[in-house]
Amino acid sequence: MYREQIKVLDCTIRDGGLINDHHFTDEFVREIYKALSRSGIDYMEFGYRSSRELFPPEEFGAWKYCDDDKIREVIDGIESDMKISVMVDSYRVKEQQFAPADESPIDMIRAATYAKYIDSAIELINKCHDLGYETTCNIMAISKEIEPDLIEALDQLAKCPVDVVYVVDSFGALYCEQIEYMVKLYQEHLPGKTLGVHCHNNQQLAFSNTIEGIIHNANYLDGSLSGIGRGPGNCCLELLVGFLKNPKFNLTPILKAIQDQMMPMREDIEWGYIIPYFITGILNEHPRSAIAYRKTDDRDKYAEFYEKMRETQQ
Amino acid sequence: MYREQIKVLDCTIRDGGLINDHHFTDEFVREIYKALSRSGIDYMEFGYRSSRELFPPEEFGAWKYCDDDKIREVIDGIESDMKISVMVDSYRVKEQQFAPADESPIDMIRAATYAKYIDSAIELINKCHDLGYETTCNIMAISKEIEPDLIEALDQLAKCPVDVVYVVDSFGALYCEQIEYMVKLYQEHLPGKTLGVHCHNNQQLAFSNTIEGIIHNANYLDGSLSGIGRGPGNCCLELLVGFLKNPKFNLTPILKAIQDQMMPMREDIEWGYIIPYFITGILNEHPRSAIAYRKTDDRDKYAEFYEKMRETQQ
Repeated sequence: MYREQIKVLDCTIRDGGLINDHHFTDEFVREIYKALSRSGIDYMEFGYRSSRELFPPEEFGAWKYCDDDKIREVIDGIESDMKISVMVDSYRVKEQQFAPADESPIDMIRAATYAKYIDSAIELINKCHDLGYETTCNIMAISKEIEPDLIEALDQLAKCPVDVVYVVDSFGALYCEQIEYMVKLYQEHLPGKTLGVHCHNNQQLAFSNTIEGIIHNANYLDGSLSGIGRGPGNCCLELLVGFLKNPKFNLTPILKAIQDQMMPMREDIEWGYIIPYFITGILNEHPRSAIAYRKTDDRDKYAEFYEKMRETQQ
Repeated sequence: MYREQIKVLDCTIRDGGLINDHHFTDEFVREIYKALSRSGIDYMEFGYRSSRELFPPEEFGAWKYCDDDKIREVIDGIESDMKISVMVDSYRVKEQQFAPADESPIDMIRAATYAKYIDSAIELINKCHDLGYETTCNIMAISKEIEPDLIEALDQLAKCPVDVVYVVDSFGALYCEQIEYMVKLYQEHLPGKTLGVHCHNNQQLAFSNTIEGIIHNANYLDGSLSGIGRGPGNCCLELLVGFLKNPKFNLTPILKAIQDQMMPMREDIEWGYIIPYFITGILNEHPRSAIAYRKTDDRDKYAEFYEKMRETQQ
């Protein structure tokens, strides 16, 4: 698939940080930045710009806050054309500040929200747009929204200056025909806006659903190295780059980063296709119960977990 | 997805046996048979009916041969409506014999072949059909065939009494649009025949490509527990059953078999999404070079393996 408009965003540090409270070493982040720059990836998401009041620094690593100076320190001296994004939970904005874009290493700010908090996302987008940033809106948990609520959110977004709106399958619950439906719904209600897709891998569908998005003209595509991310993780960046035929992408630095950076990390933290995440996926539930179950001695009692989860739905 | 004509075939023992030379214990096969029977799976494939002259019994386990008596011994006393299949490499038929179907525990014989050996498959299918068996033809490695050769094979198959013809993505190289193309091509050249899909998971597409087959009216679907199979393995049976909404299927016994039977097996043998298999997949190559690489000390040098493999293609 070659389409010039396609942009690939790596969310290794941002979504992966949800597993380890963003405690990545500077050296690790620097190596990832180098590898992604060499591989031609368009955007690297460094983490969240979170409120220190809501997320105390004693508990979280630097990439929960992504201060401009911290980003500058880590990328210092590395040649790169890659853009940098951070995510903000728009419904948890407190004392976070943003410098004007031309004084910041950040190029794009992604507003994550639920449909019911769309106003907070629009407020953030307006502010960041005025400061000169590219902006996106990522409405989460859409597989649990009733359609009028989702449409109302999209219609409001259509009137704001957001550049990209993402179809996000937070629970890894959507099949290809549902992704097609959502992308078309977003297109209908967001005339002239660019669309993106961000998929989770509960059912080993993150990559194929991303392809489904591409087929229906989504142009912003999220992936992460080895698919790292909370629970089952995301679309594997290596799969996506293997599929895209734009010669600007180079798979080798990605494979090198997986072997040198991601494989050692697998010894400490867990992500990927694991049965409890598959179960929350087919039941269209947040992975939190599966994450909690994996921390108990019963972590591999899949049948029992399935029966328990089904009971909660009845 | 509920469609009464859909039949699910489990190939855990047959394709999984390609990793361990079919050395599964009787107890293991018996437990799998019990679990699949309880879960409402339509067919269980016990293994190959191979020639002992070509595959000496000193090297292989019982499920390389699937003698009628051996199957009877293992299923003895277990209540089940599930049908039983075995696979035969039609181009490696020597002294294998088949009892008439009504004297055998086997219901279906699947002829695996390459397009160039289609005559051997048709000969086997004719013979097995006359003995009263259901039959299928699984043409392998179609992602490497030029279309006239494939079409010639399909046109010949159309004239024989085969019940089901499978679209097989041997190398895990096909994307959804190519699966759609193949299923439609098979339909066009095999009027009145039932189609099946058998996918490999090199690119985490085995499940989504199986769904793609379903969307385009393939009705025989292969899966295996935890996706076990040579190299990256197959479509995960649990994903498939989670997707199919026919109430005859029950996920719980499948999850129980994964936790009790498959998880311990993972400690001894390897399968699933692993980078070298992804690499042979995107390069449309047989996984044998990746399997060999995984046995060396360089097993995790992904970038090096990729560069080496690309050189062989230039």
